[in-house]
Amino acid sequence: MAVKRIGILTSGGDCAGLNAALRAVVHRAIRTYGWRVFGIRDGSMGLMTRPLNYVEFDLSLVTGDMLRLGGTILGTVNKGDPFHYPMPDGSFRDRSAEFVEGYRELGIEALVVIGGDGSMRILNQLCRLGGIPMVGIPKTIDNDVAQTDYAIGFPTALDVAGEAIDRLAPTAASHHRVMILEVMGRDVGHIAINAGVAGGADVILIPEIPYSLDGIAARIAAVRAEGRNHALLVVAEGCKTESGEPVSTIQAGGEVRYGGIGHYLAAKLAELVQAETRVTVLGHVQRGGMPSMRDRVVASAFGVHAVDLIAAGKLGRMVAWQHGQVGDVPLSDVAGITRAVDPYGPLAQTARGLGIYIGELPVG
Amino acid sequence: MAVKRIGILTSGGDCAGLNAALRAVVHRAIRTYGWRVFGIRDGSMGLMTRPLNYVEFDLSLVTGDMLRLGGTILGTVNKGDPFHYPMPDGSFRDRSAEFVEGYRELGIEALVVIGGDGSMRILNQLCRLGGIPMVGIPKTIDNDVAQTDYAIGFPTALDVAGEAIDRLAPTAASHHRVMILEVMGRDVGHIAINAGVAGGADVILIPEIPYSLDGIAARIAAVRAEGRNHALLVVAEGCKTESGEPVSTIQAGGEVRYGGIGHYLAAKLAELVQAETRVTVLGHVQRGGMPSMRDRVVASAFGVHAVDLIAAGKLGRMVAWQHGQVGDVPLSDVAGITRAVDPYGPLAQTARGLGIYIGELPVG
Amino acid sequence: MAVKRIGILTSGGDCAGLNAALRAVVHRAIRTYGWRVFGIRDGSMGLMTRPLNYVEFDLSLVTGDMLRLGGTILGTVNKGDPFHYPMPDGSFRDRSAEFVEGYRELGIEALVVIGGDGSMRILNQLCRLGGIPMVGIPKTIDNDVAQTDYAIGFPTALDVAGEAIDRLAPTAASHHRVMILEVMGRDVGHIAINAGVAGGADVILIPEIPYSLDGIAARIAAVRAEGRNHALLVVAEGCKTESGEPVSTIQAGGEVRYGGIGHYLAAKLAELVQAETRVTVLGHVQRGGMPSMRDRVVASAFGVHAVDLIAAGKLGRMVAWQHGQVGDVPLSDVAGITRAVDPYGPLAQTARGLGIYIGELPVG
Amino acid sequence: MAVKRIGILTSGGDCAGLNAALRAVVHRAIRTYGWRVFGIRDGSMGLMTRPLNYVEFDLSLVTGDMLRLGGTILGTVNKGDPFHYPMPDGSFRDRSAEFVEGYRELGIEALVVIGGDGSMRILNQLCRLGGIPMVGIPKTIDNDVAQTDYAIGFPTALDVAGEAIDRLAPTAASHHRVMILEVMGRDVGHIAINAGVAGGADVILIPEIPYSLDGIAARIAAVRAEGRNHALLVVAEGCKTESGEPVSTIQAGGEVRYGGIGHYLAAKLAELVQAETRVTVLGHVQRGGMPSMRDRVVASAFGVHAVDLIAAGKLGRMVAWQHGQVGDVPLSDVAGITRAVDPYGPLAQTARGLGIYIGELPVG
Repeated sequence: MAVKRIGILTSGGDCAGLNAALRAVVHRAIRTYGWRVFGIRDGSMGLMTRPLNYVEFDLSLVTGDMLRLGGTILGTVNKGDPFHYPMPDGSFRDRSAEFVEGYRELGIEALVVIGGDGSMRILNQLCRLGGIPMVGIPKTIDNDVAQTDYAIGFPTALDVAGEAIDRLAPTAASHHRVMILEVMGRDVGHIAINAGVAGGADVILIPEIPYSLDGIAARIAAVRAEGRNHALLVVAEGCKTESGEPVSTIQAGGEVRYGGIGHYLAAKLAELVQAETRVTVLGHVQRGGMPSMRDRVVASAFGVHAVDLIAAGKLGRMVAWQHGQVGDVPLSDVAGITRAVDPYGPLAQTARGLGIYIGELPVG
Repeated sequence: MAVKRIGILTSGGDCAGLNAALRAVVHRAIRTYGWRVFGIRDGSMGLMTRPLNYVEFDLSLVTGDMLRLGGTILGTVNKGDPFHYPMPDGSFRDRSAEFVEGYRELGIEALVVIGGDGSMRILNQLCRLGGIPMVGIPKTIDNDVAQTDYAIGFPTALDVAGEAIDRLAPTAASHHRVMILEVMGRDVGHIAINAGVAGGADVILIPEIPYSLDGIAARIAAVRAEGRNHALLVVAEGCKTESGEPVSTIQAGGEVRYGGIGHYLAAKLAELVQAETRVTVLGHVQRGGMPSMRDRVVASAFGVHAVDLIAAGKLGRMVAWQHGQVGDVPLSDVAGITRAVDPYGPLAQTARGLGIYIGELPVG
Repeated sequence: MAVKRIGILTSGGDCAGLNAALRAVVHRAIRTYGWRVFGIRDGSMGLMTRPLNYVEFDLSLVTGDMLRLGGTILGTVNKGDPFHYPMPDGSFRDRSAEFVEGYRELGIEALVVIGGDGSMRILNQLCRLGGIPMVGIPKTIDNDVAQTDYAIGFPTALDVAGEAIDRLAPTAASHHRVMILEVMGRDVGHIAINAGVAGGADVILIPEIPYSLDGIAARIAAVRAEGRNHALLVVAEGCKTESGEPVSTIQAGGEVRYGGIGHYLAAKLAELVQAETRVTVLGHVQRGGMPSMRDRVVASAFGVHAVDLIAAGKLGRMVAWQHGQVGDVPLSDVAGITRAVDPYGPLAQTARGLGIYIGELPVG
Repeated sequence: MAVKRIGILTSGGDCAGLNAALRAVVHRAIRTYGWRVFGIRDGSMGLMTRPLNYVEFDLSLVTGDMLRLGGTILGTVNKGDPFHYPMPDGSFRDRSAEFVEGYRELGIEALVVIGGDGSMRILNQLCRLGGIPMVGIPKTIDNDVAQTDYAIGFPTALDVAGEAIDRLAPTAASHHRVMILEVMGRDVGHIAINAGVAGGADVILIPEIPYSLDGIAARIAAVRAEGRNHALLVVAEGCKTESGEPVSTIQAGGEVRYGGIGHYLAAKLAELVQAETRVTVLGHVQRGGMPSMRDRVVASAFGVHAVDLIAAGKLGRMVAWQHGQVGDVPLSDVAGITRAVDPYGPLAQTARGLGIYIGELPVG
């Protein structure tokens, strides 16, 4: 295969490290292989828009400063799946042909997609339609892409969440409060459990493990019995109420309404443990801004390796961090699989070993 | 005056740097003057409780690590003003006599109070009742204590708020969003205007200056005209709606309800400027955890100087940061005065000079 | 005065915050006054070179990201004073006429100089030669410019030096060592005394105060008597040997040679106090990279105000940080005066109050 | 096995995360198993000294604040190998029997050793002598322990080194300099190559790969040809001169002398590439102080798992980070093996792919 022109896009929510991966792709493609690299703007939109919305990279655009820059210089918008693109009238349209025409017009012979599981799956289908290979680079602060220890963005998100706990711990102690930190994680609790262990939480709630308010209360009572009159609770945003309902549905009758799981817990625990509770919803700062060193190393390795896969004619693969270094796996091994926290795995065991309440497992 | 025993307490909301001030008081009092220092726990509560709740400091309790420790090791609770102490039955009681008896029992001859304007005023009255001198050390992340450039906690809070903008700016850019950051500041906008200038905000709203939604929209339109499709807005929590109502009151009829000023602006602007808006309410992380270097220097200077004031028999004064160094002012010059951002002052001028919309002043 | 074109340059050693000041100058000049702004590259060199070396700024070049960028995008080289420019053959030449012709060719009607005391003085002379006004913006990590509480770069340098102490303190404790940190400060000790107080040093040596090795040893002995078997010493690079000689001269006979004052102290103290000593020479990291929030606020205020001074026809002035806000002073009040740490002033008093050894003052 | 009393010690150079591991061991042992935990002070010294030097831990000594505390609260001294203990007269003595008697006197039935490869090997022999099992927890900022992706301390050291590059890059650019950063790594280049990739270095030199000054010069020439007049070079302290000699030996005749490899390169390159060069020797700050979140997670997992190994009767093993989680390996698989950077491995490939010069490999 004599690839000469490749495209690259970032898809889905932004995070720290995307620019480091972009930079690495451009360096490798131009320096080593002499290819041309086209950065497609705003995710899949850049190829569905006419005129096409892209930039051709040269080395002057990918300096070391780009390593330190958060987000993605290509932009990313979530207007929707090209196969089911939402129209202003509420209907959906299949715009996949426009996308395929787009990359044909641009003349690219392979596409590097920096995205989450869903983006990679859809874009792989779009690439197959037009017969060009795709290589995926996993990114998501949630770290729920299968087959890779790290997705780009997670290392930085962990740092941000951990630093928040470091800042909240002293104010919890000073005011004898139960401090609740709600972190990102719709489906999985990687940020919550890692940050909670790193920050010294007493309670960590993640979507993977059911919990009871009584269980939390018991842990807080134990903390007090040990002579400490404050506690830290970290909860992933995707956690449900004690009975398993989504938090947003419990506004029945318009009487009760919580801003999210953090506020639900604050209200319940204030009564149950007779403590002042306070909530911090960390939100978008977890997307990170300047990436951590770990994120930059992982993203750089991902970018270089992705280009090497194209050069080697290895199609339909995703780069991955495994055994402490970069490698790759078939996209088919990743698609549709969510990498969750193993409720019986080593990190859950670590948390329990530290006396942290992380919920109650069904007897397995 | 041959003072031999002094007390020290921290009052009101905690912040970064309190322990650095405590440490400095203890060092100076013990090393230089050979006094005994009693740390009173939980603000004024420690002297109203029987038995008294306090710790006697020695030098082994005030190591360098204390400089790095957020919050206050003495604790601080806000159960209420001893002159109007809220009782479980909803009534109020004057418990000032208990407080005076408390410090008499402890035998302290002077009291150092680390607190905000309100705390210092009340505690000064309590000290006068029993005829002992008080020296105040100003602290508040809001930086609204009069006569001092810095109150303890503000430098760190500024860093935390500024770092949040640094993290939000790239995600705003990547997603072409209007990103709103709500920071602390019930009555004043020091955190908002300083962090907004430092972080590169396009709009900064503070309680001291009225604004219009149209004014904000015009600024965002100008930003777009300059070729940038995202914007950053920083707002102090104490800002009101465009028409000057508290945000919490506009839930009449149960129809409209905002989590706070940030969410109000997000809802209004999403319509007005046709942009995706996102809100981050920074909350308690602004209390800071590990203090910044500036906070540690200021707090250390405050602590040493407070003890020197007692030694010199200067009563009823507050230490203050003026002309780049520590000094002191009469408590009476501070009491009841809120140090607000001057809408016509240099920093407002700086913000305007950078093209930032900071509201509209009545023609003065 | 109807100024239409202004120039700006950065002179001397780089530091954090220079770009924030540049950005502010450009915003104010273009947005408020509609002027054209020319950035002169590499300090005075940009006007002595033919063709002239400069960039004309527009608003797209001064985005918010520039606030976060360390150093100076204009570059700065120290090839020498235009009045006494060093030639390859070792002689000196007066190239001032070339500089004047340079700014005449560029057509600028005023010059903003971001520099230290020396740079501002020389450039003011050069501006007078050609009859154009100069406004100065003080920058130096040493913070030794007179009449201003802060020079750009100092706040960040303090943070960097303080963080280094935070990192060294635990390793000193773990290994029971005397840890020595050498920080910048050829003539003054602002970084050393501020960082030392903030970080919990036991000994702080600054060029302004003589010291004795016995005095240091006595302090370390006292630390041990208090039960601590490690100590932290912060020293400004400009400190001399105990007897007042420059450290670099004590290599007489080629027998003894120290890398600098830090290594001199390490060697002397290892013997004198029978301890393991280790030295860290912090060096160029103090120039800072990403500026602190305080540096960004100060630099932004300086930049806006500098332009306002030109607009108001106020010539020959330097912007300054005084009384907690931006102001200005005549350049003549600054020239030739080094702002040193006052050995009898409040911060020295703070250090002594904390039990820190900062040298011995002549009986004054 | 019904273990009731265990000991724990930290050995060798301190680093970030040691206290997090200590804390985890104490929590797991007391909470889960009800054991007693004895912290032995100053590495092996605590058991060779009479009276024994140790502390018995209870949960009140291992709070969340300990997660944030750098170094080791147990202390660590490097007086020497108990089998070959250096005596004041210059001779060596076998003091192993004293050590064995020490742990017998303390009555511990197993020992947890937090140390590097060498410490673990020696202490395992000492434990075998007395017939008690040892479990190892790998720590070293160099990350050269075999069979584990992370040793405690490395993640934080990487952050510190990377941040230094972030601070040096702007000053290199502003002054058009070749900036050299010397980082730790006597035998291996993990910090150098990871930090160099993360920070955007142009040249990375590690002990594992030979280099030539001409190769460096060629890279710097290429950088200039790309239009950039500054460069960043990261070098591990253990690198030798171009010809493979230790840097410290090239002071022949007393004429030439370098402070280390960084200064050697600075001197050589200043001539070779006709550039201003500057050196920063990062030194002890890499030991880290407050640990990164990754270090805290790894250390916590290591501590809990080490106790579980003892409880399960698994002797002579080291905990390890593999496949993204904690596991364990036989100590015999680790002893005497240095985990070096693979010159042909993925990270070296990443560096080359980014255009970084990392030396020249023998044709393999």
